Amino acid sequence: MGALAHHWLLDFEGCPFESLDRADPVREALLEAAARAGAKVIGERFHQFEPHGASGVVLIGESHLSIHTWPERGYAAADLFTCSTSLDVDAAVEVLRARLHPSRVGRRRVERHPGLLPTPT
Amino acid sequence: MGALAHHWLLDFEGCPFESLDRADPVREALLEAAARAGAKVIGERFHQFEPHGASGVVLIGESHLSIHTWPERGYAAADLFTCSTSLDVDAAVEVLRARLHPSRVGRRRVERHPGLLPTPT
Repeated sequence: MGALAHHWLLDFEGCPFESLDRADPVREALLEAAARAGAKVIGERFHQFEPHGASGVVLIGESHLSIHTWPERGYAAADLFTCSTSLDVDAAVEVLRARLHPSRVGRRRVERHPGLLPTPT
Repeated sequence: MGALAHHWLLDFEGCPFESLDRADPVREALLEAAARAGAKVIGERFHQFEPHGASGVVLIGESHLSIHTWPERGYAAADLFTCSTSLDVDAAVEVLRARLHPSRVGRRRVERHPGLLPTPT
């Protein structure tokens, strides 16, 4: 059975503190990533942690994008969950790369669909 | 380096259509799962797809929970991203099991932290 959805786990390392500190620019980055991927945004929710760091999720018609930042570690963990094969994941990653200025970017793709688990006997 | 966060990928298979169809009960399930895990809810966003299915995210102080349902496939994909080691993941899974009535539940745990990627030379 083909994947019903793909879950991309995106790691951004070596980011400048300033690029991860405040929720507003992190939100702008995630919304631009969603737009550039061709996703339909249907809702969003962001949170500013004090003194530093942000969390946020953009709900899209194709599923979701999320991000959590640790400015003091120069690290952001994002994910892009999509049930569409037409989203441009590369474009979303490039937006986040341009906005967060990481020195390294990791991408892991996990398949999400029924049929992965053994049938109970 | 220890994990900064754990990303639990939770698959629920063999669910009755009715348990995955509407956003309201799916939302209640996710909020109860967050509460029973001991998470601090700081925001939420849910969406009803027509004719069937729901998506939603609960932003928590410890990161997030999300869910996407395919009632026609009897399948729901959830994730619990937590930067806290004190959340009760088992309790959250048990709430979702009790609410969604799956015949099978899958749990995968992915570590999220900087240091996974090779340093550029």
